[in-house]
Amino acid sequence: MLRSQRVSLLGKSLSLTRSISQSTSFQASAATASSTRTSTIPLDHASNDTAFDYDGFLDTELDKKRKDKSYRYFNNINRLAKEYPLAHRKLETDKVTVWCSNDYLALSKNQQVMDVMKQTIDKYGAGAGGTRNIAGHNKLTLRLESELATLHKKEGALVFSSCFVANDAVLSLLGQKLKDLVIFSDELNHASMIIGIKHANTKKHIFKHNNLAELEEQLSQYPRNQPKLIAFESVYSMAGSVADIEAICNLADKYGAMTFLDEVHAVGLYGPHGAGVAEHLNFDSHLKAGIKTLPKGVANVMDRIDMITGTLGKSFGTVGGYVAASQRLIDWFRSYAPGFIFTTTLPPAIMAGAAEAIRYQRVHLNLRQDQQRHTMYVKQGLNDLDIPVIPNPSHIVPVLIGNADLAKKASDYLMNKHKIYVQAINFPTVSRGTERLRITPTPGHTNDYSDILLDAIDDTFNELQLPRIKDWKSQGGLLGVGEGNAEDVKPLWTAKQLSYSNKDLNPNVFDDVMEELEVSSGIHI
Amino acid sequence: MLRSQRVSLLGKSLSLTRSISQSTSFQASAATASSTRTSTIPLDHASNDTAFDYDGFLDTELDKKRKDKSYRYFNNINRLAKEYPLAHRKLETDKVTVWCSNDYLALSKNQQVMDVMKQTIDKYGAGAGGTRNIAGHNKLTLRLESELATLHKKEGALVFSSCFVANDAVLSLLGQKLKDLVIFSDELNHASMIIGIKHANTKKHIFKHNNLAELEEQLSQYPRNQPKLIAFESVYSMAGSVADIEAICNLADKYGAMTFLDEVHAVGLYGPHGAGVAEHLNFDSHLKAGIKTLPKGVANVMDRIDMITGTLGKSFGTVGGYVAASQRLIDWFRSYAPGFIFTTTLPPAIMAGAAEAIRYQRVHLNLRQDQQRHTMYVKQGLNDLDIPVIPNPSHIVPVLIGNADLAKKASDYLMNKHKIYVQAINFPTVSRGTERLRITPTPGHTNDYSDILLDAIDDTFNELQLPRIKDWKSQGGLLGVGEGNAEDVKPLWTAKQLSYSNKDLNPNVFDDVMEELEVSSGIHI
Repeated sequence: MLRSQRVSLLGKSLSLTRSISQSTSFQASAATASSTRTSTIPLDHASNDTAFDYDGFLDTELDKKRKDKSYRYFNNINRLAKEYPLAHRKLETDKVTVWCSNDYLALSKNQQVMDVMKQTIDKYGAGAGGTRNIAGHNKLTLRLESELATLHKKEGALVFSSCFVANDAVLSLLGQKLKDLVIFSDELNHASMIIGIKHANTKKHIFKHNNLAELEEQLSQYPRNQPKLIAFESVYSMAGSVADIEAICNLADKYGAMTFLDEVHAVGLYGPHGAGVAEHLNFDSHLKAGIKTLPKGVANVMDRIDMITGTLGKSFGTVGGYVAASQRLIDWFRSYAPGFIFTTTLPPAIMAGAAEAIRYQRVHLNLRQDQQRHTMYVKQGLNDLDIPVIPNPSHIVPVLIGNADLAKKASDYLMNKHKIYVQAINFPTVSRGTERLRITPTPGHTNDYSDILLDAIDDTFNELQLPRIKDWKSQGGLLGVGEGNAEDVKPLWTAKQLSYSNKDLNPNVFDDVMEELEVSSGIHI
Repeated sequence: MLRSQRVSLLGKSLSLTRSISQSTSFQASAATASSTRTSTIPLDHASNDTAFDYDGFLDTELDKKRKDKSYRYFNNINRLAKEYPLAHRKLETDKVTVWCSNDYLALSKNQQVMDVMKQTIDKYGAGAGGTRNIAGHNKLTLRLESELATLHKKEGALVFSSCFVANDAVLSLLGQKLKDLVIFSDELNHASMIIGIKHANTKKHIFKHNNLAELEEQLSQYPRNQPKLIAFESVYSMAGSVADIEAICNLADKYGAMTFLDEVHAVGLYGPHGAGVAEHLNFDSHLKAGIKTLPKGVANVMDRIDMITGTLGKSFGTVGGYVAASQRLIDWFRSYAPGFIFTTTLPPAIMAGAAEAIRYQRVHLNLRQDQQRHTMYVKQGLNDLDIPVIPNPSHIVPVLIGNADLAKKASDYLMNKHKIYVQAINFPTVSRGTERLRITPTPGHTNDYSDILLDAIDDTFNELQLPRIKDWKSQGGLLGVGEGNAEDVKPLWTAKQLSYSNKDLNPNVFDDVMEELEVSSGIHI
């Protein structure tokens, strides 16, 4: 029955089971003498059992997704460089305002970034042409890794195809090579970290989100000299919650653990130079020091993190991921991680564009500040409309819907009625029953745009009769919505930090970072 | 002792152990009242045991690599778009000829590809700005996936960050979701497949390279209705050997197995349209049909493969990977594979450039033919000089050295003395004792370049007294070198296939593939 449903759904006849389609093509090819190669295997017609029904299995799995409303329909969104934040859909005339991209600073539309990429294509071509070991290691890679090390004030950095790959490669390698390593992981860690930890194939503990009492309880079960790793994020992307990085560093010191911090959703947005939340925690010291390391004796949370991973595909406008760490760790990842070794290097133009974006955002503190101001405006506006936003101190605006079907309907209604694109976030990205619309303002989403958005969301809540804050409150609340303490969540960016201007930056941040870190080449000076 | 060696090697003082550096930074931060966040965890000064010596562990691991000569030094190689096959090293004036890139058709230097990429940057910016589900799905992605499906004559295709990710994601998903799946894997499969199969976490059998008798013996141990997957490559990249695809399809039919074929080192180079070895096996039929599917009843090996994976980073000149398969499989990968779901989409310019490269190579049969002719010229020349090439029917020219130290010395000598770049291939890319120089001619490596290369390699063999064919023969041979049957290996490209010209192509291959496969969006018409 399932199968006939699918066939009518597809509107055309597909081969129904593997065994049928195989025997057809098999006989066809066996009957053809002109085939350039012949089989060395005699046919065994005695083997007449039915093969496993692969297509039936796939149909069942896909049907499950449709039934529980987690089946995904991707929207065709073509973001226009010259009309940001607009994009066109399938037809170029059908334009929408994008309110959910992770191009947080809109640097993918930045003229300097685009120009550098085009010049690099002219000079060095479209692709790298090999792995890092075989013809794919070049000055633009070295330059980018130098920029990244400088940004995070680490000895070295290593670029991967993506931060998914970086997290998976680094975490799995640590677990596989470091005998008896125990990994402690926040329950809301990104899929790439969860998978890396799974592949690490070592003992692990999951602690409740940001629950450091539970983390300490877990850490304290092991002798201090047993290797340990605490893996966590700074900004959790779907809720916007933020880790207490310094407290986790204190625990790491106390129990002899390494620290692994994913700053994917924080780089570009926090800290005076966009190095992330770890930099933000010592804002004034880093602002004063510029790209130099802080003097000894000055509080320095970023320095206490052993491994920082980040992405080039969000605030830095391009694609790719990285880890920044000590020279030893970088050389070790470079030498042992299959996900780094056995893959083609990112194109020179991507490396050059990412480096340009990092330099650009470093000297434009105002971009981060505008992004925060626009976030605050949208959050306040939604609150005034009694529309539920999961409370958090970051730049993420998660509008709680709490139902997969309604979340998709809300997204579709915003798109079709209001020409506003906000993707519905459903399982497996968030847990079932916590579905949401995730809004991400950028420096270009000025208050005029926000006012239109606020009206549109209000209309959508009316049209679909979606639960407002008061409705959540009457049900006891969910994820901080309607739980009465939303006002207590203070933004990471303080009024004082928002009052600085680009003129307050240390002149050294305008310098080109010309040093090429030889550690990425395997050459130590 | 190890540690003091490293310190003098580095020429600067680094923190020696984790416990020292941590206690310093810990106390520093604890003493600073201006820190924006404070720890909730009380300090336990009773915990004075030494922490694990992380730095010592890393030093030991890195030292192992140096001792066994598998420590890698990456060469800084900047391939010049306008002076192909030249590249500059660190200094722009220091130019070398590149003889080992995987940019097999030099399409990364193709003007049409570069122009399309630059135009796409102008119109759609530097990066995609999100995952496929969240703002990162666009017409250029759909277009590329449509091109890939057309190339392999499959219902659909799905693009990943790289083919490393594609192989890992697809194989691990199959194993994790398909209960009781048994995977049969060629021992020379690429690291990405080995890792995918490991992550599949299911029963597996490794069969000796291209040994189909052993594969059949393994397959025959299971009932026909138990799910099975045979995972293999068409061209094995480091030896240049080629699988008997049709015979494996026959086995798959006989035992009810699915087939997974990695054509990473074959796309662009085999088949009338560059779809790979599976297409090449029915060359004349596909040449006649152009981009259309073959009529029923005609032998069609490509159609018998369930999943074909390939890369955009070698013959297709850019970066990324993909799988081409049935609509059901593509929709299932799209819906379930974390490595696809949770990562930023490749930039629009990469998608557009790759699609352009695929179209360009499809209508330029002469590129593949020139590549083969140049390969044959180099192989013949080396053989005439008694220089050992691991015999194979493909475009790979693996010059056997058999020693890690000598392979690096040969590579360095070619670079420094002759300004020729051929990377030494060592462990873990090939097994110890089979180290080699891997030469990859392109359409631009004309016989003039080859003559210079041949002289340089001859000089290198003299200078370093490297073993020639006669030396290997006297030792009983290795990997087919000096084993007396090298002449029996016939190239995949026949004289007849090399005699066709672009005029023999079906006019439909010049058509734009405009169809957008809705399966990639989750929408089935």
